[in-house]
Amino acid sequence: MNTFGQRLRVTTFGESHGPAIGCVIDGLPAGLAVDEGFIAAQMARRRPGQNAFATQRNEADVVEILSGVFEGVTTGTPVALMIRNTNQKSGDYETLKHLFRPGHADITYHAKYGVRDYRGGGRSSARETAARVAAGAFAQLMLREIGITIQSGICEIDGLVGQTIDFAHAAKSEIFALDPACEDEWKKRILSAKNSHDSVGGAALIVAHGVPAGLGEPLYYKLDALLAAALMGINGVKAVDIGDGRDAARMRGSQNNDPITPDGFFSNHAGGVLGGISTGAPVVARAWFKPTPSIFLPQQTITTDHQATQLMIKGRHDPCIAIRGSVVAEAMVALTLADLSLLNLGSRIDHLKTLYQSSR
Amino acid sequence: MNTFGQRLRVTTFGESHGPAIGCVIDGLPAGLAVDEGFIAAQMARRRPGQNAFATQRNEADVVEILSGVFEGVTTGTPVALMIRNTNQKSGDYETLKHLFRPGHADITYHAKYGVRDYRGGGRSSARETAARVAAGAFAQLMLREIGITIQSGICEIDGLVGQTIDFAHAAKSEIFALDPACEDEWKKRILSAKNSHDSVGGAALIVAHGVPAGLGEPLYYKLDALLAAALMGINGVKAVDIGDGRDAARMRGSQNNDPITPDGFFSNHAGGVLGGISTGAPVVARAWFKPTPSIFLPQQTITTDHQATQLMIKGRHDPCIAIRGSVVAEAMVALTLADLSLLNLGSRIDHLKTLYQSSR
Amino acid sequence: MNTFGQRLRVTTFGESHGPAIGCVIDGLPAGLAVDEGFIAAQMARRRPGQNAFATQRNEADVVEILSGVFEGVTTGTPVALMIRNTNQKSGDYETLKHLFRPGHADITYHAKYGVRDYRGGGRSSARETAARVAAGAFAQLMLREIGITIQSGICEIDGLVGQTIDFAHAAKSEIFALDPACEDEWKKRILSAKNSHDSVGGAALIVAHGVPAGLGEPLYYKLDALLAAALMGINGVKAVDIGDGRDAARMRGSQNNDPITPDGFFSNHAGGVLGGISTGAPVVARAWFKPTPSIFLPQQTITTDHQATQLMIKGRHDPCIAIRGSVVAEAMVALTLADLSLLNLGSRIDHLKTLYQSSR
Amino acid sequence: MNTFGQRLRVTTFGESHGPAIGCVIDGLPAGLAVDEGFIAAQMARRRPGQNAFATQRNEADVVEILSGVFEGVTTGTPVALMIRNTNQKSGDYETLKHLFRPGHADITYHAKYGVRDYRGGGRSSARETAARVAAGAFAQLMLREIGITIQSGICEIDGLVGQTIDFAHAAKSEIFALDPACEDEWKKRILSAKNSHDSVGGAALIVAHGVPAGLGEPLYYKLDALLAAALMGINGVKAVDIGDGRDAARMRGSQNNDPITPDGFFSNHAGGVLGGISTGAPVVARAWFKPTPSIFLPQQTITTDHQATQLMIKGRHDPCIAIRGSVVAEAMVALTLADLSLLNLGSRIDHLKTLYQSSR
Repeated sequence: MNTFGQRLRVTTFGESHGPAIGCVIDGLPAGLAVDEGFIAAQMARRRPGQNAFATQRNEADVVEILSGVFEGVTTGTPVALMIRNTNQKSGDYETLKHLFRPGHADITYHAKYGVRDYRGGGRSSARETAARVAAGAFAQLMLREIGITIQSGICEIDGLVGQTIDFAHAAKSEIFALDPACEDEWKKRILSAKNSHDSVGGAALIVAHGVPAGLGEPLYYKLDALLAAALMGINGVKAVDIGDGRDAARMRGSQNNDPITPDGFFSNHAGGVLGGISTGAPVVARAWFKPTPSIFLPQQTITTDHQATQLMIKGRHDPCIAIRGSVVAEAMVALTLADLSLLNLGSRIDHLKTLYQSSR
Repeated sequence: MNTFGQRLRVTTFGESHGPAIGCVIDGLPAGLAVDEGFIAAQMARRRPGQNAFATQRNEADVVEILSGVFEGVTTGTPVALMIRNTNQKSGDYETLKHLFRPGHADITYHAKYGVRDYRGGGRSSARETAARVAAGAFAQLMLREIGITIQSGICEIDGLVGQTIDFAHAAKSEIFALDPACEDEWKKRILSAKNSHDSVGGAALIVAHGVPAGLGEPLYYKLDALLAAALMGINGVKAVDIGDGRDAARMRGSQNNDPITPDGFFSNHAGGVLGGISTGAPVVARAWFKPTPSIFLPQQTITTDHQATQLMIKGRHDPCIAIRGSVVAEAMVALTLADLSLLNLGSRIDHLKTLYQSSR
Repeated sequence: MNTFGQRLRVTTFGESHGPAIGCVIDGLPAGLAVDEGFIAAQMARRRPGQNAFATQRNEADVVEILSGVFEGVTTGTPVALMIRNTNQKSGDYETLKHLFRPGHADITYHAKYGVRDYRGGGRSSARETAARVAAGAFAQLMLREIGITIQSGICEIDGLVGQTIDFAHAAKSEIFALDPACEDEWKKRILSAKNSHDSVGGAALIVAHGVPAGLGEPLYYKLDALLAAALMGINGVKAVDIGDGRDAARMRGSQNNDPITPDGFFSNHAGGVLGGISTGAPVVARAWFKPTPSIFLPQQTITTDHQATQLMIKGRHDPCIAIRGSVVAEAMVALTLADLSLLNLGSRIDHLKTLYQSSR
Repeated sequence: MNTFGQRLRVTTFGESHGPAIGCVIDGLPAGLAVDEGFIAAQMARRRPGQNAFATQRNEADVVEILSGVFEGVTTGTPVALMIRNTNQKSGDYETLKHLFRPGHADITYHAKYGVRDYRGGGRSSARETAARVAAGAFAQLMLREIGITIQSGICEIDGLVGQTIDFAHAAKSEIFALDPACEDEWKKRILSAKNSHDSVGGAALIVAHGVPAGLGEPLYYKLDALLAAALMGINGVKAVDIGDGRDAARMRGSQNNDPITPDGFFSNHAGGVLGGISTGAPVVARAWFKPTPSIFLPQQTITTDHQATQLMIKGRHDPCIAIRGSVVAEAMVALTLADLSLLNLGSRIDHLKTLYQSSR
């Protein structure tokens, strides 16, 4: 089940310390101009090893396009992308061969499959998210063509909630901070945790602008349900809000309902979704990331033969996975909206008449 | 896209004021004894019209089994269920023909499809959830056979968060209250909102016990991602937590990691899921419901031809959809776990050897 | 796996001698006018009990629409159809409870599921095809809107191959005979087999006109592959040809290639498909049906506890299943083309631009 | 739609003259030993450039495993395979940029997508089938573990039908001839056609032994329907038979029904399938391939701007695609059976009890 989406389907592959990771993107419309600069820019945002707030694993993350693009445009055939792993240090993981790291998927992969690639978390490593970002960049190129753009950033670190949303600021912030006023304190807390060999959690906010009304396929492929799955499926995410989310549940109906005017909705508590279908207002989602499970303090665990033991993790890790996670979250929202944009074609008989009559 | 699940697939149909609602459950193993008493009991929990905390629409909700069950057991063929609608009052909705109710899906169905059954919300009505509960009951019967049981209840109303979790109490509470100490205040707030023609939000907690380690299909059909989709897809849900959820994002890694011992996990901040796969600990999820959008106060909206107007809703509505919603949430968790229990078969080559060798 | 199609999905349910059969059609565009007269006419063509060439089981086959249609048009929500079984004679089957009929699915359902509804073949009965024809009629209504029409008939009985294709004649023939010159001999052979308590096989030809070039989703959802699955999945079908089929394999390349001219293809050996995509020429398929396995001669078989025994079938059966099977084949071709017509939307980025720009 | 299968899913990518072709195999059980020698042997059977009966394009077809295999066994994560294209001669195709080759998919890809990679047929080239054979080899390794083996060969060339089935002979025949008595004549006809710049058609026979009763998921994922799709989806296949296929339609019911005895079926006209489910007898299928459309004679066609023109194909082509196609057909049958072997797990409640109880 390594495929995301129904009409735009992304199948990812690869382990943290295997030869390569990558994906096959199937269902992209033909004729889409492939802006390789944009793809590289998105990859650079997620790339590790660039500052004190991310792991020091330094991967070039060069995306090789193996198929589906000809003379600069998509051809309608599957786009396969491959990213070679180059900066593995498998030696760091030899001690983990017979141990389960708390907060990691080691124990559950072992329970499910009986065997596992223990190097760097294998398949469960966040390394795989490079493929998501690459695929998400293609989705964003497609969405641009119909006027949809997506922005993201960090709205909370270590429980300190940002009060403003400034995407322009986030774009140039090392930690993608949406609130300039919080940025220094957020950085301080991350480094403080890092210095005490610990980690912190945080939250990302993602907003999609220009989403036409009508996207989302009730009742079991709703826009909000898909966003929830897309975001909760990212490593370390434990909570998702759509629109006002949990806060909506603490309002009265008279406060939470968004009045409708001839010029659009008066407010957007709903986050751009009603009945699982986009309203035309911005689509708003938040994802909460747990603190990085890889900490450099002694931890209680067991061996693969069920003996108690103590673990001291080595290796290179992000002190706060929410930061680079926000880029992944943006990619997943892009993939969701691109999939739904395609699925919505044919929701009315007029769509068929328009497209097939013009082809005659 | 009216189908939920991959290996256990539930396809629902029906509108609030059409002749019938129902579903087809495909993929149930053959040989499962169908306990009709249990199914009826689950339906009764969701049934409206029973007290002051739910809508007065009084539906018998008798489930007719049209196929797939023979001599009291499932045969492996699709189980079709039908529930006739009997207590419609379509007249209540005539005024809504040319209006969009704020907080409802009227405007998005109109945008997407161009036509809509405006009576009682049509397909977007919570009436459809009766089919989910019926299907969920079948899933629970299946899960019982492998030792999985699911419990649910209300853990928050109108922002007042419950402090204890008492499923036995919830089972006999009119509002499925998990905290006996909060129950009276919760009821008071619901009725207070109702009396001022308004509504309140709330949250449901769902816990699955006995879930074996290994359920969940990484990377895009993870247990937590599916639960998020299953719950966020319920009418009115705006936020989902897995395990400690948002609170996990406010801890340090050293606090949030669940230490592993030879007897199991020392704590369960993770809510029974690591890397998208069940750990063997109880699976814990929470869903936040917005306040009922149908309120009996004047609201600002537009007509189908985009003129501003004021709306006064009539009809029969729950003052707090979280309550009956918690039963639906339990059903969705059951369907998710049943689907994953089936999908997990074949995760190891030994499964194939075991089952096919014994068949020779 | 009781669902056919990806974008237009039909999920059928029901057993031969259960309370009802039916289906849920999901993915029909909204705004399609539902011509109930056409649906009834298609049902009438498949209906049993009308002449000497079909079983005497006499079912009214009244289709009740339970959902998805409002004020005469589809609403984009699932269309559920139910057909009550009224003319069952379960008594005929009591003797089959512990026996497997040769040529039937009794033994394989028993092997797979351990339990089975033995009355009239249960789920494996051709009774289920009434739901296919009803769903196929909806598909045909949709296809009409984009200029696609489908015709079918019988092109071979008992090895006697028809030489002409006259759809107008087939439409009024009791046995849907495409070749008027063969009709009498075909009837004679059917009745001769019937009178000697035996049965004959035959073949159906299906042609779709007006199919635009471009339908079919390579490489694993090709038009010809789907047609093959759709037809081979019909009860009793053992061979499928696309275009010239087997005969193409007996030509030289220079004979079989269809020359291309500015006015279209010079010939149509390909049957309207190249590379799994429609060419714009008529789509042509043939399906060969085995002789009815229910014959009224003694047959060698075993009991459910593996003892040898002799079987004498009672009940009511078609002496040649190809005849009514041709109507089912037409329905399956319609469902295939409708699914592919929807899936093709979005094959070019221009489709998205056209439909979303006009919606702004 | 470049994915084949439901539970074992193979997603292929790549064009004839792009950098690489390959696939992602998702759903393979963990713990399967990967016999790279077997995989290489299967690849070698399909490999071009080895004798006068195949194209002279000489590809090494080295399969690089990018993921999903660790220390010689599968890990349950997706297995990505890549095969670099090394022997392209794109220059051969420059003249085809503005032309459509008769019998090829050039014109339909153009109609569907508006753009196409015209070099060597791009995505529609049989080059892609190398990925199928590699994936099929993994499927065969899995099937071996439950006792299923698959054999294939050529049973007809240019209309001359083989009379015996000798798989041992086929294994060492340059043209995989199943009938030693026909081999010389078959070769002669192929070379004769080749020498006159033309091509011939043929048919492949595939037999699976050791298939347990019970595989196949009625009603819309039946074994025979899937085989039909799997085979008809191969480049150039125009007809598929299951068991006696078309010949069954020319028998009486009394001849075609396979009598059942306590020791199994007395005959196997059905080809190992009843009601879409395997019977336990060998599964038998045939696929008819059209003559290679690439012939070296002048052909009438049009340019991309609809002008009449004449075409003379250059390049390197098989004079009879059925030969190497038979290896692809074997792979597709393997993938089908592997998928159904996995899907069948959970058909009975006892499967769940057995596997989950042993895991506690």
